Parts: sequence; structure tokens; C-alpha cells
Amino acid sequence: MAAGFDFGITARDGEARAGRMRTPHGTVATPAFMPVATLGAVRGVSAADLEALGAQILLANTYHLHERPGESIVSGQGGLHGFTGWRGPWLTDSGGYQVTSLSARNRVDEDGVTFTSPLDGRRRLLTPERAVAIQEALGSDIAMVLDECQPPAADAASPAGATLRIRAATERTQRWAERCAAARKRRSQALFGIVQGGADEGLRRWSARATATLPFDGFAHGGLGLGEAHTRRLDLLRATHAELPAAAPRYLMGLGRPLDLVEAIAAGVDLFDCVIPTRHARHGVLFTSEGLLRARNARFADDARPPDPDCDCPTCARISRAYLRHLLRAGEILGARLASLHNLRFYLRLMAEARAAIAAGAFEPVRARVAALGDAAVP
Amino acid sequence: MAAGFDFGITARDGEARAGRMRTPHGTVATPAFMPVATLGAVRGVSAADLEALGAQILLANTYHLHERPGESIVSGQGGLHGFTGWRGPWLTDSGGYQVTSLSARNRVDEDGVTFTSPLDGRRRLLTPERAVAIQEALGSDIAMVLDECQPPAADAASPAGATLRIRAATERTQRWAERCAAARKRRSQALFGIVQGGADEGLRRWSARATATLPFDGFAHGGLGLGEAHTRRLDLLRATHAELPAAAPRYLMGLGRPLDLVEAIAAGVDLFDCVIPTRHARHGVLFTSEGLLRARNARFADDARPPDPDCDCPTCARISRAYLRHLLRAGEILGARLASLHNLRFYLRLMAEARAAIAAGAFEPVRARVAALGDAAVP
Repeated sequence: MAAGFDFGITARDGEARAGRMRTPHGTVATPAFMPVATLGAVRGVSAADLEALGAQILLANTYHLHERPGESIVSGQGGLHGFTGWRGPWLTDSGGYQVTSLSARNRVDEDGVTFTSPLDGRRRLLTPERAVAIQEALGSDIAMVLDECQPPAADAASPAGATLRIRAATERTQRWAERCAAARKRRSQALFGIVQGGADEGLRRWSARATATLPFDGFAHGGLGLGEAHTRRLDLLRATHAELPAAAPRYLMGLGRPLDLVEAIAAGVDLFDCVIPTRHARHGVLFTSEGLLRARNARFADDARPPDPDCDCPTCARISRAYLRHLLRAGEILGARLASLHNLRFYLRLMAEARAAIAAGAFEPVRARVAALGDAAVP
Repeated sequence: MAAGFDFGITARDGEARAGRMRTPHGTVATPAFMPVATLGAVRGVSAADLEALGAQILLANTYHLHERPGESIVSGQGGLHGFTGWRGPWLTDSGGYQVTSLSARNRVDEDGVTFTSPLDGRRRLLTPERAVAIQEALGSDIAMVLDECQPPAADAASPAGATLRIRAATERTQRWAERCAAARKRRSQALFGIVQGGADEGLRRWSARATATLPFDGFAHGGLGLGEAHTRRLDLLRATHAELPAAAPRYLMGLGRPLDLVEAIAAGVDLFDCVIPTRHARHGVLFTSEGLLRARNARFADDARPPDPDCDCPTCARISRAYLRHLLRAGEILGARLASLHNLRFYLRLMAEARAAIAAGAFEPVRARVAALGDAAVP
């Protein structure tokens, strides 16, 4: 286990739990949402902005930072904390998702992943040991094991072939997890294991049991949100949680919409990351207390109301829907920024509400309220 | 003259002057630099940011706002102040520069300018009366007359032809100025005349004398910075000032580099706007106390110093050259934003220094220091 890292559950409400995750760079109240700072920066949003929005912990991408500027530069500048100016906790993903799922040109074998750099075209090898070493150089508070991610829906035309491939990837992920655990040199960095297994409950249970035998500080759900049915996913989360140590933090990687988050919280998840708030913002789609607001819509051309009258973000404090629509339509980058600030605040505030509701034993009304909004409701 | 508008000179140092320009939405200490908010927003920079940086007055573009979202939308939202959230003074340019100088497809005749909208391809007519009416609808504190701008360097192959064309444009600008002055309906909006005449001192003197016969609240130098020699421009400024009422504010439109500003201040200019600070920022070029810093340069890859150690902006307070270079190279929009905040603060702080130095009778050392930096000095 890592020095300076621990997790304690402070309240439960059904399977939902609130907790405190201590890291070398600060304590994170859970459930928590991690804004995605792929290259060491959330798009258009500074470290000072993120502090003002109430962010607690950021996620950076090992693969992208390895490509540019390279971990040696980051390490020389005091790690991610010194380099980026975000002094709070950092989590780094391992790059496994990017290199094993995103390109047919990358070759995965037992040793690791051989991939072609999009920057210089050179072939590079990422092994479990190298993934740990890079993350140690980046200096994140929480590192992730290198995993092989196979989407559940792969080879729909050949379900038997898909099952075999997912099983093989899940077993390999376990062997890589052992190598990652053995490769750790840095005492002050937590390492999380990743449960794979596609949409196969038995396989995910096996992966969870096997991962839990290793000395990880927390556990993540990998390879979800890639095509499996909504209710199926919740069943898989619950089945996996039954096999994991209850006292360890649980992280659902890469998901999702507000509804995904509150339902996963109800199933016992503690930690989230997702690009949706910032990506939607760039397309002019805002999360509000009244549902989705497509800010480019012509009906907002002369709407003097703030994007969300029930929001305390800097955008809603000052900006009308009419002005936001104008900025987005004109391609003015301030529009994407103001929408991003709002959406991030919406997510972070939802997590704060979830924590308070769990502590009060009243999480179900929060979940039900978000579920009732749906994705189609546009005010 | 406009209600709620006046200008008073508070200190002189040679020809340089410090003053206070009162507008319906606040008082501007001069010399002042106006950040350019073409579409009602400085690129990537919010009204709250501009307040924090010390901006006093912004410039918006009548032509662009007429095209999108249209002045009726802006007017319905409380004018530029209500629409954009910048509650301080606004100056609008008339659109003359855009429509008379930027496209060979636009046709200028005595009535006005017929131009093709880049948004919908339709032909539109902008007359002096219409330019005033649009600016009154936008609700700016200071409006500009519609002028015809002919660059001094036009038709270099035929100097006689160019001279004739510039003379005709200057005389037409004067007739349009009379129509603009007659078209004013709104008492609480100042209107500035524009002196034209290319690089011809006699023509600029004539234009200044003629413009000064009209009841304008201030006067601008138009059509400069378009090719004339540096020292020639200073001679033209001084010659023009000799023909203008000394008690009125003087505005040099669209210029320029820090050296251009301090030299023009020494020649008696009070007001500036320019896109250079934000445009340079987007290209990674920063103005610093040590000269230009090209932040994408490889030498900064592991440079932990702030962009300008002598700067009090939010970027320099928190961000290293290494991180800024990384953001700019990765095309991360936060890089352009952080560089823009810095460059704007550099310009605004330079103006504050100029005001203090003029009040102390010591402007020359400020001018000399900026001149000594040059544009080639990269730290």
C-alpha cells in the first residue's frame, strides 16, 4: 500500500457510500468527479478556475503526456503538480485504454503494446513496467495499472470469438497487474487495479477476485460504457463490488452522463472521470437543473436568463443565454470556455449534493431527480 | 456634444498628456488602451477577466455585430453593456475600415458602402446615417463616424493615382462626417470624427481642420499603420494635433506595438486599440519586461520561470514557460488564453505606467525603456 494514501467510508446509504480519500497532495471527499486534463490541462480551463469551481482531483493521460512533452520534462518541473500549477491530487490513467482499444495498428502481445506515435510515426513499446515507471516520473498521487481493454460489443457478428478475445484480454490484464504491482518503486504513489471482463458477469467477478489478491490501493471498473445496456452495467458494477474489498475506493473509468453517475453511486462507486462535461460544452450543450440546454438553439437568441437560473457558477452569475448563443455560433472560444466552466460546476456540485445526501441517508431523491430530468428535456 | 461625456487633461509632459474621459458608464483614465472585443468578446477572455486585468473600456466592431447577432438583439438585451456583461464604457468603430478597405468586392459611392455579407451572401448598404443608427442601437458610449479608408501604400505603381484616390476618400469622409453628425438621435452617446489623408501631411491637416468644424466629442487618426514609415507617422500625428482642439480626446485607431503606443503618447495621443496583444498571444508571442518572448521556442521546454518575472498577471503568478510552451505546442486553447491574459495585462500596465509618468513629468524614461527593448530582443 502507498504511503500517505488511505480511504475511509464516512457514511452509507444503501449501497451508496461517502468517504474521504487521503492522498499526498490533499484529501478528496467521495463520491468525487475528476475533470479530465488529458495533456495536463482541462481544455480552456486553468488550475485557478478549477479551484474556484470546487474540483478536488484531476485526471491526466499518461500516454499523451509521454508523447508530449515527455515524462522527463514533467518530472524535471516537479511532476504534474509543479508543471501544471494544479497542486491538489492527480490521478493518471495508464494509457492502456488509448493504446489497446483505439487503433487497429497497435499490436498487443504478452510483453506489452507496440504502438505508432501519432506525433513522430515511430514505433514504441509500452509494457506494464514502463507504464508504472512513466506514472512514477509524472508524480501522480494515484497511478493505474496497464490493462488491455476490449469493448464488450466487439465482433458482434461472432459472439463466441468476442467472448474468447475478451477472456484472453481479461486474463492478460491480470498478469500485467501482477507485473505492475511488482514494478512499483515509489512509495508515495497509490496504484489502482482495473477489473475487466466485458459484459460477462462471471468474467468480471473472476477479474475482481484475482485483482483483489494483489496489494492495490483501490480498484477500477474498466471497459464499461462501451456498448453494454444501461441496466446490465449496474448489475455488473454490483456483482464486481461483491468481489472487491469493501474498504477500498472504487472508480468507474470514463463514465458518463449525470444519470450514469448517480446510478453508479447508488451501486457503490466512489470515483468518476469523464470528458462529457467539457466535450458537450464545446458543442454548446449544457447540463442544467432543468435538463439539457442546447445553447445554440434559435429560441435563446433573445433570452436574457442565465443558462441555469439555479446555478452558482461564474458563467450563470453573469452571462445570458442570448450572449452564450451568440459566442457559440460565432465560434468565439470564450463560448466554449464559459460553457465548460458551467458544465464542470454542474458535475462537481452534483457530487457535493450526493455526498451530503448520502450523509443524510437521503440519496434516493437525488438519484430520482436526476433520472427524472432525462437527456431529452430541453428547457 | 453628448450628455454624460467630457474629457479633461490632468497633466502634461511635453506633448504627452494624461486625462480623464467621463462616459455614461464610467470614467477612463488616459492614455488608455482598449482591448478589442470584435464580436462583443475579447477572444477567450471574459468580462470578469478584463476587470481583473485593469481594462477600463472595450472596443466592439459595429460591422461584425450588425452581421451577427444583429443590433436589434443587442439592443433588446440592454445594449452592449447588458448583452456582454461588460458594464464599463464601450467604444464602437463604425465598420468603415472593414467595408471600405478589406474587400475589393465592396462598392463605395457617395451614398455609402455596398458590401456582400460573408454570412449570407446578401448585398447590404451601409450609409453614414445607418452606421450611426446601428451604433445607437448597440448603445456604445462612444460611436465613430463612417469613414472611407484608403491605405497610403495603395497603388504604389501609380503614386499620382493613389494620391487622387486618397484625396477623394478624405473629402468623402468629410461629407460623411457631416451626415453622421446630423444623424445623431441619442444624446447620451459621444461621437468621434476621423481624420484621413493617407501619408499626405497637407491632406491630413485639411481633414483635421474640416473635421474640427463639426460638433464631435473627440477625434481619431484613421488609415495609419498601413504602410507609412514609422517616423513619418509621428510627424503626421503631430501635424494633425496642431489642427485639432487641444481639449478633445485623440484616438489612434488600430495601432500597435508597445513602441508605437509610447511614441504616439509622446506625440499627444490619448486612446488606443489594437488586436496585437491577443493575436500575438495566440501565436505564442508574449510581450515582457525583457522584450518579446516566443514561448514555443525549444529553449523554454524545461524553463521553470514565469513568462515575465516582472509581471503581476494571473498567468505569470502561476504558470511556467515550460508549461505554457507545452500548452501552445499541443494546441491546447488554455495556452492562447493564458498568453492573452498576460499580453493584455502588459499593455494595460504600460498605460498605467505612462499615466503615472506623465503626472510626474517623467514620461521620457518610459518611452526610452520601451524603445530600448525593441522587437527583436528575446530573453
